[in-house]
Amino acid sequence: MSEIKDQSIALFLDALASKAATPGGGSAAAVMGAQSAALTGMVCNLTIGKPKYAEVENEMRSLLAKSEALRAKLTDMIKADVDVFNKLMACYGLPKDSEEEKTTRSARIQAVLKEATDVPLECAKACAEAIELSRIAADKGNLGVISDAGVAVMAGYAALKSAALNVYINAGSMKDREFADAKITELEKILNGADIASEEIYQLVKAKL
Amino acid sequence: MSEIKDQSIALFLDALASKAATPGGGSAAAVMGAQSAALTGMVCNLTIGKPKYAEVENEMRSLLAKSEALRAKLTDMIKADVDVFNKLMACYGLPKDSEEEKTTRSARIQAVLKEATDVPLECAKACAEAIELSRIAADKGNLGVISDAGVAVMAGYAALKSAALNVYINAGSMKDREFADAKITELEKILNGADIASEEIYQLVKAKL
Repeated sequence: MSEIKDQSIALFLDALASKAATPGGGSAAAVMGAQSAALTGMVCNLTIGKPKYAEVENEMRSLLAKSEALRAKLTDMIKADVDVFNKLMACYGLPKDSEEEKTTRSARIQAVLKEATDVPLECAKACAEAIELSRIAADKGNLGVISDAGVAVMAGYAALKSAALNVYINAGSMKDREFADAKITELEKILNGADIASEEIYQLVKAKL
Repeated sequence: MSEIKDQSIALFLDALASKAATPGGGSAAAVMGAQSAALTGMVCNLTIGKPKYAEVENEMRSLLAKSEALRAKLTDMIKADVDVFNKLMACYGLPKDSEEEKTTRSARIQAVLKEATDVPLECAKACAEAIELSRIAADKGNLGVISDAGVAVMAGYAALKSAALNVYINAGSMKDREFADAKITELEKILNGADIASEEIYQLVKAKL
Protein backbone atom coordinates (compact mmCIF):
# COMPACT_ATOMS: atom_id res chain seq x y z
CA MET A 1 0.00 0.00 0.00
CA SER A 2 1.24 3.49 -0.80
CA GLU A 3 2.12 5.89 1.99
CA ILE A 4 -0.88 7.83 3.36
CA LYS A 5 0.38 11.20 2.14
CA ASP A 6 0.39 9.81 -1.41
CA GLN A 7 -3.22 8.67 -1.15
CA SER A 8 -6.06 10.93 -2.17
CA ILE A 9 -7.86 13.02 0.44
CA ALA A 10 -11.07 11.09 -0.28
CA LEU A 11 -9.36 7.73 0.32
CA PHE A 12 -7.67 9.05 3.46
CA LEU A 13 -11.07 10.14 4.80
CA ASP A 14 -12.55 6.74 3.91
CA ALA A 15 -9.73 4.99 5.77
CA LEU A 16 -10.09 7.36 8.73
CA ALA A 17 -13.81 6.59 9.02
CA SER A 18 -13.40 2.84 8.55
CA LYS A 19 -13.04 0.24 11.27
CA ALA A 20 -9.37 -0.15 10.38
CA ALA A 21 -7.29 0.88 13.38
CA THR A 22 -5.04 3.10 11.23
CA PRO A 23 -5.03 5.83 10.15
CA GLY A 24 -6.59 7.31 13.29
CA GLY A 25 -6.49 10.47 15.34
CA GLY A 26 -2.70 10.61 15.40
CA SER A 27 -2.46 10.80 11.63
CA ALA A 28 -5.36 13.24 11.48
CA ALA A 29 -3.49 15.46 13.95
CA ALA A 30 -0.37 15.41 11.77
CA VAL A 31 -2.45 16.28 8.68
CA MET A 32 -3.98 19.26 10.50
CA GLY A 33 -0.55 20.35 11.70
CA ALA A 34 0.77 20.14 8.14
CA GLN A 35 -2.22 22.18 6.93
CA SER A 36 -1.34 24.82 9.50
CA ALA A 37 2.26 25.08 8.30
CA ALA A 38 1.12 25.06 4.66
CA LEU A 39 -1.27 27.98 5.23
CA THR A 40 1.42 30.03 6.97
CA GLY A 41 3.57 29.26 3.93
CA MET A 42 0.77 30.44 1.64
CA VAL A 43 0.57 33.77 3.44
CA CYS A 44 4.36 34.15 3.06
CA ASN A 45 4.26 33.23 -0.62
CA LEU A 46 1.58 35.85 -1.23
CA THR A 47 3.46 38.52 0.74
CA ILE A 48 6.97 38.03 -0.66
CA GLY A 49 7.67 40.15 -3.73
CA LYS A 50 4.84 42.62 -3.14
CA PRO A 51 6.21 46.19 -3.06
CA LYS A 52 3.68 47.10 -0.36
CA TYR A 53 5.25 44.50 1.93
CA ALA A 54 8.90 45.11 1.05
CA GLU A 55 9.61 46.02 4.66
CA VAL A 56 8.78 42.51 5.89
CA GLU A 57 10.21 40.68 2.86
CA ASN A 58 13.18 39.19 4.71
CA GLU A 59 11.10 38.17 7.67
CA MET A 60 8.57 36.51 5.36
CA ARG A 61 11.35 34.63 3.57
CA SER A 62 12.67 33.35 6.87
CA LEU A 63 9.13 32.45 8.02
CA LEU A 64 8.53 30.57 4.77
CA ALA A 65 11.70 28.51 5.22
CA LYS A 66 10.63 27.62 8.76
CA SER A 67 7.04 26.82 7.86
CA GLU A 68 8.08 24.67 4.92
CA ALA A 69 10.52 22.69 7.06
CA LEU A 70 7.80 22.24 9.63
CA ARG A 71 5.32 21.14 6.98
CA ALA A 72 7.77 18.45 5.80
CA LYS A 73 8.24 17.27 9.39
CA LEU A 74 4.51 17.14 10.09
CA THR A 75 3.81 15.39 6.78
CA ASP A 76 6.30 12.68 7.81
CA MET A 77 4.44 12.34 11.09
CA ILE A 78 1.31 11.14 9.31
CA LYS A 79 3.19 7.91 8.62
CA ALA A 80 5.20 7.86 11.87
CA ASP A 81 1.96 7.60 13.84
CA VAL A 82 0.77 4.60 11.83
CA ASP A 83 4.19 2.92 12.02
CA VAL A 84 4.53 3.13 15.78
CA PHE A 85 0.91 2.03 16.26
CA ASN A 86 1.51 -1.05 14.12
CA LYS A 87 4.72 -1.77 16.00
CA LEU A 88 2.83 -1.59 19.29
CA MET A 89 0.05 -3.86 18.00
CA ALA A 90 2.70 -6.38 16.87
CA CYS A 91 4.08 -6.41 20.43
CA TYR A 92 0.63 -6.99 21.91
CA GLY A 93 0.37 -9.93 19.49
CA LEU A 94 3.50 -11.63 20.83
CA PRO A 95 2.96 -15.06 22.49
CA LYS A 96 2.32 -15.07 26.23
CA ASP A 97 2.06 -18.76 27.07
CA SER A 98 5.17 -19.24 29.20
CA GLU A 99 6.47 -16.98 31.96
CA GLU A 100 9.48 -16.21 29.77
CA GLU A 101 7.26 -15.22 26.87
CA LYS A 102 5.21 -13.02 29.16
CA THR A 103 8.33 -11.24 30.37
CA THR A 104 9.68 -10.73 26.87
CA ARG A 105 6.30 -9.51 25.59
CA SER A 106 5.85 -7.06 28.43
CA ALA A 107 9.37 -5.67 28.02
CA ARG A 108 8.82 -5.18 24.29
CA ILE A 109 5.48 -3.44 24.88
CA GLN A 110 7.03 -1.12 27.43
CA ALA A 111 9.92 -0.25 25.12
CA VAL A 112 7.62 0.54 22.19
CA LEU A 113 5.26 2.52 24.45
CA LYS A 114 8.13 4.95 25.03
CA GLU A 115 8.42 5.41 21.27
CA ALA A 116 4.63 5.67 20.99
CA THR A 117 4.74 8.51 23.53
CA ASP A 118 7.62 10.31 21.84
CA VAL A 119 5.96 10.33 18.40
CA PRO A 120 2.86 12.34 19.42
CA LEU A 121 4.99 14.47 21.78
CA GLU A 122 7.18 15.45 18.83
CA CYS A 123 4.01 16.16 16.87
CA ALA A 124 2.69 18.35 19.70
CA LYS A 125 5.98 20.29 19.75
CA ALA A 126 5.82 20.82 16.00
CA CYS A 127 2.20 22.00 16.28
CA ALA A 128 3.09 24.49 19.00
CA GLU A 129 5.74 25.83 16.65
CA ALA A 130 3.16 25.99 13.84
CA ILE A 131 0.96 28.12 16.10
CA GLU A 132 3.82 30.53 16.79
CA LEU A 133 4.68 30.75 13.08
CA SER A 134 1.05 31.56 12.28
CA ARG A 135 1.32 34.50 14.68
CA ILE A 136 4.01 36.11 12.52
CA ALA A 137 1.90 35.51 9.39
CA ALA A 138 -1.13 37.03 11.16
CA ASP A 139 0.93 39.96 12.37
CA LYS A 140 2.85 40.87 9.23
CA GLY A 141 1.40 38.98 6.27
CA ASN A 142 -0.47 40.34 3.24
CA LEU A 143 -3.84 41.62 4.46
CA GLY A 144 -5.51 40.17 1.37
CA VAL A 145 -4.88 36.62 2.61
CA ILE A 146 -4.72 37.25 6.34
CA SER A 147 -7.67 34.94 7.00
CA ASP A 148 -5.45 32.03 5.95
CA ALA A 149 -3.24 32.84 8.95
CA GLY A 150 -6.38 32.50 11.07
CA VAL A 151 -7.07 29.06 9.63
CA ALA A 152 -3.39 28.19 10.19
CA VAL A 153 -3.63 28.96 13.91
CA MET A 154 -6.85 26.99 14.38
CA ALA A 155 -5.48 23.98 12.48
CA GLY A 156 -2.30 24.08 14.59
CA TYR A 157 -4.27 24.35 17.82
CA ALA A 158 -6.57 21.44 16.95
CA ALA A 159 -3.55 19.37 15.94
CA LEU A 160 -1.73 20.18 19.19
CA LYS A 161 -4.67 19.19 21.39
CA SER A 162 -5.19 16.06 19.31
CA ALA A 163 -1.58 14.93 19.52
CA ALA A 164 -1.71 15.55 23.27
CA LEU A 165 -4.39 12.88 23.70
CA ASN A 166 -2.07 10.25 22.26
CA VAL A 167 0.73 11.29 24.61
CA TYR A 168 -1.64 10.90 27.58
CA ILE A 169 -2.84 7.47 26.43
CA ASN A 170 0.56 5.97 25.78
CA ALA A 171 2.27 7.53 28.78
CA GLY A 172 -0.63 6.24 30.85
CA SER A 173 0.08 2.63 29.90
CA MET A 174 3.74 2.87 30.84
CA LYS A 175 5.25 1.11 33.85
CA ASP A 176 8.27 3.42 33.92
CA ARG A 177 6.45 6.22 35.74
CA GLU A 178 9.50 8.42 35.90
CA PHE A 179 9.79 8.43 32.09
CA ALA A 180 6.02 8.81 31.67
CA ASP A 181 5.75 11.68 34.15
CA ALA A 182 8.65 13.50 32.53
CA LYS A 183 6.89 13.25 29.16
CA ILE A 184 3.57 14.45 30.60
CA THR A 185 5.36 17.39 32.23
CA GLU A 186 6.99 18.22 28.91
CA LEU A 187 3.62 18.01 27.16
CA GLU A 188 1.86 20.19 29.68
CA LYS A 189 4.55 22.82 29.35
CA ILE A 190 3.75 22.90 25.61
CA LEU A 191 -0.01 22.95 26.19
CA ASN A 192 0.17 25.63 28.85
CA GLY A 193 -1.18 28.86 27.40
CA ALA A 194 -1.67 27.43 23.90
CA ASP A 195 -5.41 28.05 24.13
CA ILE A 196 -4.91 31.72 25.03
CA ALA A 197 -2.18 32.19 22.43
CA SER A 198 -4.32 30.63 19.70
CA GLU A 199 -7.35 32.73 20.52
CA GLU A 200 -5.12 35.84 20.58
CA ILE A 201 -3.79 35.09 17.11
CA TYR A 202 -7.30 34.30 15.85
CA GLN A 203 -8.58 37.63 17.20
CA LEU A 204 -5.59 39.44 15.70
CA VAL A 205 -6.68 38.07 12.31
CA LYS A 206 -10.36 38.78 12.88
CA ALA A 207 -9.61 42.41 13.75
CA LYS A 208 -7.90 42.83 10.37
CA LEU A 209 -10.73 41.46 8.20
CA MET B 1 -7.18 19.17 -13.23
CA SER B 2 -8.76 16.56 -10.99
CA GLU B 3 -10.95 17.58 -8.10
CA ILE B 4 -9.03 18.40 -4.89
CA LYS B 5 -10.45 15.46 -2.95
CA ASP B 6 -9.02 13.12 -5.59
CA GLN B 7 -5.54 14.62 -5.26
CA SER B 8 -3.03 13.20 -2.83
CA ILE B 9 -2.64 14.75 0.61
CA ALA B 10 0.93 15.73 -0.26
CA LEU B 11 -0.19 17.53 -3.43
CA PHE B 12 -3.03 19.23 -1.58
CA LEU B 13 -0.56 20.51 1.01
CA ASP B 14 1.79 21.71 -1.75
CA ALA B 15 -1.08 23.59 -3.41
CA LEU B 16 -2.19 25.01 -0.06
CA ALA B 17 1.30 26.37 0.65
CA SER B 18 1.81 27.72 -2.87
CA LYS B 19 1.09 31.23 -4.08
CA ALA B 20 -1.93 29.94 -5.98
CA ALA B 21 -5.04 31.57 -4.56
CA THR B 22 -6.83 28.23 -4.30
CA PRO B 23 -7.03 25.97 -2.44
CA GLY B 24 -6.92 28.22 0.62
CA GLY B 25 -8.31 28.39 4.12
CA GLY B 26 -11.86 27.61 3.03
CA SER B 27 -10.88 24.27 1.55
CA ALA B 28 -8.62 23.54 4.52
CA ALA B 29 -11.61 24.17 6.80
CA ALA B 30 -13.76 21.73 4.83
CA VAL B 31 -11.00 19.09 4.98
CA MET B 32 -10.78 19.49 8.77
CA GLY B 33 -14.56 19.28 9.07
CA ALA B 34 -14.56 16.10 6.99
CA GLN B 35 -11.80 14.68 9.20
CA SER B 36 -13.99 15.40 12.21
CA ALA B 37 -16.97 13.54 10.75
CA ALA B 38 -14.71 10.69 9.61
CA LEU B 39 -13.27 10.22 13.11
CA THR B 40 -16.73 10.17 14.68
CA GLY B 41 -17.55 7.52 12.06
CA MET B 42 -14.46 5.55 13.05
CA VAL B 43 -15.54 5.50 16.69
CA CYS B 44 -18.98 4.24 15.59
CA ASN B 45 -17.48 1.57 13.34
CA LEU B 46 -15.33 0.32 16.21
CA THR B 47 -18.25 0.31 18.66
CA ILE B 48 -20.93 -1.33 16.50
CA GLY B 49 -21.00 -5.11 16.81
CA LYS B 50 -19.07 -5.25 20.10
CA PRO B 51 -21.07 -7.22 22.71
CA LYS B 52 -19.81 -4.85 25.43
CA TYR B 53 -21.49 -1.94 23.63
CA ALA B 54 -24.70 -3.73 22.60
CA GLU B 55 -26.72 -1.25 24.60
CA VAL B 56 -25.65 1.68 22.42
CA GLU B 57 -25.61 -0.27 19.15
CA ASN B 58 -28.67 1.43 17.67
CA GLU B 59 -27.51 4.86 18.70
CA MET B 60 -24.09 4.21 17.18
CA ARG B 61 -25.70 3.05 13.92
CA SER B 62 -27.75 6.22 13.76
CA LEU B 63 -24.68 8.33 14.64
CA LEU B 64 -22.69 6.61 11.90
CA ALA B 65 -25.36 7.38 9.29
CA LYS B 66 -25.36 11.03 10.35
CA SER B 67 -21.57 11.37 10.48
CA GLU B 68 -21.14 9.71 7.10
CA ALA B 69 -23.73 12.01 5.49
CA LEU B 70 -21.96 14.96 7.06
CA ARG B 71 -18.57 13.73 5.84
CA ALA B 72 -19.92 13.56 2.28
CA LYS B 73 -21.31 17.08 2.61
CA LEU B 74 -18.06 18.48 4.01
CA THR B 75 -15.98 16.68 1.39
CA ASP B 76 -18.08 18.37 -1.31
CA MET B 77 -17.38 21.71 0.36
CA ILE B 78 -13.65 21.38 -0.36
CA LYS B 79 -14.54 22.01 -4.01
CA ALA B 80 -17.44 24.40 -3.36
CA ASP B 81 -15.05 26.85 -1.72
CA VAL B 82 -12.70 26.84 -4.70
CA ASP B 83 -15.59 27.14 -7.17
CA VAL B 84 -17.17 30.17 -5.56
CA PHE B 85 -13.78 31.85 -5.11
CA ASN B 86 -13.02 31.41 -8.80
CA LYS B 87 -16.48 32.71 -9.68
CA LEU B 88 -15.84 35.79 -7.56
CA MET B 89 -12.41 36.36 -9.12
CA ALA B 90 -13.99 36.12 -12.59
CA CYS B 91 -16.42 38.88 -11.60
CA TYR B 92 -13.63 41.12 -10.36
CA GLY B 93 -12.00 40.55 -13.75
CA LEU B 94 -15.01 41.91 -15.68
CA PRO B 95 -14.39 45.09 -17.71
CA LYS B 96 -15.02 48.40 -15.98
CA ASP B 97 -14.35 50.97 -18.68
CA SER B 98 -17.82 52.40 -19.24
CA GLU B 99 -20.37 53.35 -16.62
CA GLU B 100 -22.57 50.53 -17.87
CA GLU B 101 -19.75 48.01 -17.48
CA LYS B 102 -19.04 49.31 -13.99
CA THR B 103 -22.67 48.84 -13.01
CA THR B 104 -22.86 45.34 -14.47
CA ARG B 105 -19.57 44.33 -12.85
CA SER B 106 -20.56 45.64 -9.44
CA ALA B 107 -23.95 43.92 -9.59
CA ARG B 108 -22.32 40.61 -10.53
CA ILE B 109 -19.77 40.93 -7.71
CA GLN B 110 -22.49 41.67 -5.18
CA ALA B 111 -24.56 38.69 -6.35
CA VAL B 112 -21.64 36.27 -6.14
CA LEU B 113 -20.59 37.69 -2.74
CA LYS B 114 -23.90 36.41 -1.38
CA GLU B 115 -23.03 32.95 -2.64
CA ALA B 116 -19.49 33.33 -1.30
CA THR B 117 -20.98 34.08 2.12
CA ASP B 118 -23.44 31.20 2.01
CA VAL B 119 -20.79 28.59 1.16
CA PRO B 120 -18.66 29.09 4.32
CA LEU B 121 -21.82 29.64 6.39
CA GLU B 122 -23.07 26.21 5.28
CA CYS B 123 -19.63 24.84 6.13
CA ALA B 124 -19.78 26.43 9.59
CA LYS B 125 -23.21 24.87 10.18
CA ALA B 126 -21.94 21.44 9.13
CA CYS B 127 -18.93 21.83 11.44
CA ALA B 128 -21.15 22.75 14.38
CA GLU B 129 -23.08 19.58 13.67
CA ALA B 130 -19.81 17.62 13.51
CA ILE B 131 -18.94 18.94 16.98
CA GLU B 132 -22.28 17.78 18.36
CA LEU B 133 -21.90 14.35 16.74
CA SER B 134 -18.44 13.99 18.29
CA ARG B 135 -20.07 14.54 21.69
CA ILE B 136 -22.16 11.38 21.29
CA ALA B 137 -19.08 9.44 20.18
CA ALA B 138 -17.16 10.79 23.20
CA ASP B 139 -20.03 9.99 25.52
CA LYS B 140 -20.95 6.50 24.36
CA GLY B 141 -18.27 5.19 22.01
CA ASN B 142 -15.82 2.32 22.53
CA LEU B 143 -13.36 3.41 25.24
CA GLY B 144 -10.51 1.81 23.28
CA VAL B 145 -10.80 4.48 20.58
CA ILE B 146 -12.30 7.31 22.59
CA SER B 147 -9.33 9.59 21.87
CA ASP B 148 -10.46 9.68 18.24
CA ALA B 149 -13.65 11.39 19.43
CA GLY B 150 -11.37 13.98 21.05
CA VAL B 151 -9.59 14.57 17.76
CA ALA B 152 -13.00 14.75 16.04
CA VAL B 153 -14.15 17.57 18.30
CA MET B 154 -10.95 19.58 17.88
CA ALA B 155 -10.99 19.17 14.09
CA GLY B 156 -14.64 20.27 14.00
CA TYR B 157 -13.94 23.28 16.21
CA ALA B 158 -10.95 24.42 14.13
CA ALA B 159 -13.00 23.97 10.97
CA LEU B 160 -15.91 25.98 12.38
CA LYS B 161 -13.73 28.91 13.44
CA SER B 162 -11.93 28.78 10.08
CA ALA B 163 -15.12 28.79 8.01
CA ALA B 164 -16.36 31.71 10.14
CA LEU B 165 -13.48 33.91 8.93
CA ASN B 166 -14.64 33.51 5.34
CA VAL B 167 -18.20 34.44 6.27
CA TYR B 168 -16.91 37.61 7.94
CA ILE B 169 -14.74 38.56 4.93
CA ASN B 170 -17.39 38.06 2.28
CA ALA B 171 -20.26 39.52 4.28
CA GLY B 172 -18.00 42.49 5.00
CA SER B 173 -17.63 43.30 1.30
CA MET B 174 -21.38 43.26 0.69
CA LYS B 175 -23.41 46.35 -0.05
CA ASP B 176 -26.68 44.69 0.93
CA ARG B 177 -26.15 45.24 4.65
CA GLU B 178 -29.47 43.66 5.58
CA PHE B 179 -28.48 40.39 3.93
CA ALA B 180 -24.93 40.59 5.32
CA ASP B 181 -26.05 41.36 8.87
CA ALA B 182 -28.56 38.51 8.78
CA LYS B 183 -25.77 36.12 7.76
CA ILE B 184 -23.44 37.41 10.48
CA THR B 185 -26.20 37.01 13.05
CA GLU B 186 -26.78 33.45 11.85
CA LEU B 187 -23.04 32.74 12.06
CA GLU B 188 -22.67 34.16 15.53
CA LYS B 189 -25.58 32.06 16.75
CA ILE B 190 -23.63 29.02 15.54
CA LEU B 191 -20.35 30.22 17.05
CA ASN B 192 -21.93 31.14 20.37
CA GLY B 193 -20.86 28.58 22.96
CA ALA B 194 -18.96 26.42 20.47
CA ASP B 195 -15.71 27.06 22.34
CA ILE B 196 -17.19 25.93 25.65
CA ALA B 197 -18.96 22.94 24.07
CA SER B 198 -15.77 21.82 22.34
CA GLU B 199 -13.65 22.09 25.46
CA GLU B 200 -16.34 20.18 27.38
CA ILE B 201 -16.28 17.32 24.88
CA TYR B 202 -12.47 17.33 24.86
CA GLN B 203 -12.39 17.12 28.66
CA LEU B 204 -15.01 14.35 28.59
CA VAL B 205 -12.62 12.36 26.38
CA LYS B 206 -9.54 13.23 28.44
CA ALA B 207 -11.24 12.05 31.64
CA LYS B 208 -11.80 8.65 30.04
CA LEU B 209 -8.20 8.03 28.92
